[in-house]
Amino acid sequence: VSIRVGVNGAKGKMGRASVGAIKSSEDLQLVFAADVGDSLEKLIADEKADVVVDFTKASDGPENASLIIKAGARPVIGTSGFQKSAIPELDKLCREKKLGGLIVPNFSIGAIKMMQFSAEAAKYFDSAEVVEYHHDGKEESPSGTALRTAELISEAFASKTPKAKASERKEIEIIPGGRGAQLNGVRVHSVRLPGYLADQEVIFGGAGETLSISSRPRDRDCFMGGVCLACRRVTELEGMVYGLENLL
Amino acid sequence: VSIRVGVNGAKGKMGRASVGAIKSSEDLQLVFAADVGDSLEKLIADEKADVVVDFTKASDGPENASLIIKAGARPVIGTSGFQKSAIPELDKLCREKKLGGLIVPNFSIGAIKMMQFSAEAAKYFDSAEVVEYHHDGKEESPSGTALRTAELISEAFASKTPKAKASERKEIEIIPGGRGAQLNGVRVHSVRLPGYLADQEVIFGGAGETLSISSRPRDRDCFMGGVCLACRRVTELEGMVYGLENLL
Amino acid sequence: VSIRVGVNGAKGKMGRASVGAIKSSEDLQLVFAADVGDSLEKLIADEKADVVVDFTKASDGPENASLIIKAGARPVIGTSGFQKSAIPELDKLCREKKLGGLIVPNFSIGAIKMMQFSAEAAKYFDSAEVVEYHHDGKEESPSGTALRTAELISEAFASKTPKAKASERKEIEIIPGGRGAQLNGVRVHSVRLPGYLADQEVIFGGAGETLSISSRPRDRDCFMGGVCLACRRVTELEGMVYGLENLL
Amino acid sequence: VSIRVGVNGAKGKMGRASVGAIKSSEDLQLVFAADVGDSLEKLIADEKADVVVDFTKASDGPENASLIIKAGARPVIGTSGFQKSAIPELDKLCREKKLGGLIVPNFSIGAIKMMQFSAEAAKYFDSAEVVEYHHDGKEESPSGTALRTAELISEAFASKTPKAKASERKEIEIIPGGRGAQLNGVRVHSVRLPGYLADQEVIFGGAGETLSISSRPRDRDCFMGGVCLACRRVTELEGMVYGLENLL
Repeated sequence: VSIRVGVNGAKGKMGRASVGAIKSSEDLQLVFAADVGDSLEKLIADEKADVVVDFTKASDGPENASLIIKAGARPVIGTSGFQKSAIPELDKLCREKKLGGLIVPNFSIGAIKMMQFSAEAAKYFDSAEVVEYHHDGKEESPSGTALRTAELISEAFASKTPKAKASERKEIEIIPGGRGAQLNGVRVHSVRLPGYLADQEVIFGGAGETLSISSRPRDRDCFMGGVCLACRRVTELEGMVYGLENLL
Repeated sequence: VSIRVGVNGAKGKMGRASVGAIKSSEDLQLVFAADVGDSLEKLIADEKADVVVDFTKASDGPENASLIIKAGARPVIGTSGFQKSAIPELDKLCREKKLGGLIVPNFSIGAIKMMQFSAEAAKYFDSAEVVEYHHDGKEESPSGTALRTAELISEAFASKTPKAKASERKEIEIIPGGRGAQLNGVRVHSVRLPGYLADQEVIFGGAGETLSISSRPRDRDCFMGGVCLACRRVTELEGMVYGLENLL
Repeated sequence: VSIRVGVNGAKGKMGRASVGAIKSSEDLQLVFAADVGDSLEKLIADEKADVVVDFTKASDGPENASLIIKAGARPVIGTSGFQKSAIPELDKLCREKKLGGLIVPNFSIGAIKMMQFSAEAAKYFDSAEVVEYHHDGKEESPSGTALRTAELISEAFASKTPKAKASERKEIEIIPGGRGAQLNGVRVHSVRLPGYLADQEVIFGGAGETLSISSRPRDRDCFMGGVCLACRRVTELEGMVYGLENLL
Repeated sequence: VSIRVGVNGAKGKMGRASVGAIKSSEDLQLVFAADVGDSLEKLIADEKADVVVDFTKASDGPENASLIIKAGARPVIGTSGFQKSAIPELDKLCREKKLGGLIVPNFSIGAIKMMQFSAEAAKYFDSAEVVEYHHDGKEESPSGTALRTAELISEAFASKTPKAKASERKEIEIIPGGRGAQLNGVRVHSVRLPGYLADQEVIFGGAGETLSISSRPRDRDCFMGGVCLACRRVTELEGMVYGLENLL
């Protein structure tokens, strides 16, 4: 038996891609593709949706999640900028209904595994740097993924017993900035060039060797494996979970 | 209190490097550096060694392990080509003496984590290829590490539910060999060029993205982190363990 | 003064992209966008086209080139599968009219420079291997670009004085195919995984070092720099030239 | 007939390696290996040296070069920190004697070709960044090679007609330093991790594609190809040349 999935925000780029991915997945069945103006509540009831994928606008995330749960379906919220403060109440609602729910800031399985492997490798290496490569239209540096990766690494470094020896390298920057941005002792370098999308390499250095983990998305398709996986796993949950990494 | 470590085969390259690494490690204390002609038994007793690191010749591995255990120390056998058939008896001996023992084909932490991450990533991606880069003096291809990696990946592929769809790609090799060696469906490519030591990249491909894990040893030092780690962890074991990966 | 450019085959993918690229280029002016059914001759005359970019079907290439030259414009033929046998006559026609013409199998400047650098590096290194990475929908291996690169490298090897020592490595393929395809002594490895488009790395190995050159196209846009460059350079030529590499 | 080569400073690391490289080269003949205390003049005369390779201390470079030329041999000066101000006089001396001479700050052919290819690629791409990877014992950043590469690229950018559009990207550095050091508009990123020696990657970005050139030395051997090449080429020169790149 397949899982019955509805998509809300089906006219946006991510919504449209999700509709395609769900349709071509053997164990998932698309039961509706809704957008602004449609009654989500009615669609869930009429189509007996098990799961609803939501790609709408940030401010609607919590409300849509609440509405989906109350209608008896499991929300998979891909909408960016979800306010974390809304989670406890949604979690309570989920548990009352004995339903699972997922809020997913990043659906790329490659990016998630890169971050997990980095946190794990940090247990065995005492030095790491992150190099991320984005298109030249991206103004901010470092990227959110790079910052999150550096945070995970620095937490792993900090929790080691005995502590990793604080790197007491002497740094002489002939030109300032050469050694990158620093987050809790982890250096992050941001390359911005046309021709890139959103690559990242995390490099661990030890005596006489390096270990590196690289994620390279090519297009929006890279999120679709994560969308389908989220639809499957949310049916096995009870309560609201933030981040696909908790299920991988 | 530090762990008292003796080295057997201390005149060989790996033995000599181990002596240096143990000396410069704060929680390890070098209590002897033996080689052919020395009485290992007497040295262990006299110096109250907790652990003995053995880098001698393949045929001596099992006998040395046995001798070390009987003398009351924990063997860390780095000698290559250890016959696995000798393990059950050594394990029994260890348990009688309530001691741990380790046989370690590869001490590089980078290489071990690369293999572990590959086995893990294979749960989430349905396609993978291995590219390994060795110096032109290496005659065999693929390398042992590449074969072991491909084996781990194919096992992970095989144990998925539902099964990863068998890749039914049509292959047209205009020149034979282009698509590499195949081990249970995982392709392995072997580059042989001066200037390399023993690099390996494992690439996972999914819809719209790739995830890759690379290990690059630079010199013999890369094994020393593993040697020291083995000396520490073997004191917490009971029984004989094959492969450092089981402790990481 | 800008160069007046017409596009033939403007409804195809490459034609449409060319129209966009020419429009957004300051020194080029799009004067027509034609397709099947339009009179190319009349459009060239009416719009006083200096250059006509042609992306139609292979069999039409030579005829379109001839027609464009006779109408007094310079052809830039991007149509794939152009029969080289047609070139001498087109060249004669160009010279009579004192016009230039270009036939371009690959417009990617990155790919062309990668091939040129490879031919140049081969003068200084005696060993090279090619690793190419394509999407899993590509059936043939090695790719055309990889074969052409290997050919250029082997030609450079062959023309050295004194000859590069023939690599007399002993090869033991534990699993057949591991060492890749061989073209005149240059090994080529073909990776096929979802998530790639058409990457290629060319690696030169020497005593104690490697030098590598990598080309990574991301999308069709990578051809547009070459299309605009061809439009500019063809106006400075007299006679028919095959391959953009001759102008770079 | 082979070229008769003497080595001065033969007890240092580079001198010793050079002795080995010259001995194993078919067209070069080692005629002496001198060090402090030996009479270089007498050795050149007695052994009829055609070329003398000098790896001594910086302050001795110009004097040794002068002495070698006066004794009738061609100097190949590998001594680091050679004062450029001494070159004009040495050049004059060379021309009087109708001899060639070479001062070589970097003998790695891989590094030299990387810089040459970068200068060439900069003619066809409008954006480039340099990422260099050194061991954590290197205090300064960026490396000398990275600075020289960025200089060559910015010179190529500046000499284009029409000028490459000045990149007017808006930069928002959430953490300062993320975007690296800037040399005339070319960004340079310096990674410092144990496990690296002195790698460098130069990346060019264009519409929809990247082209990258990487140099990876593994050990001192990488300089020996350049030493032998310098010994050959210096015999064809007249006057003093600075930098092996002028002969490649």
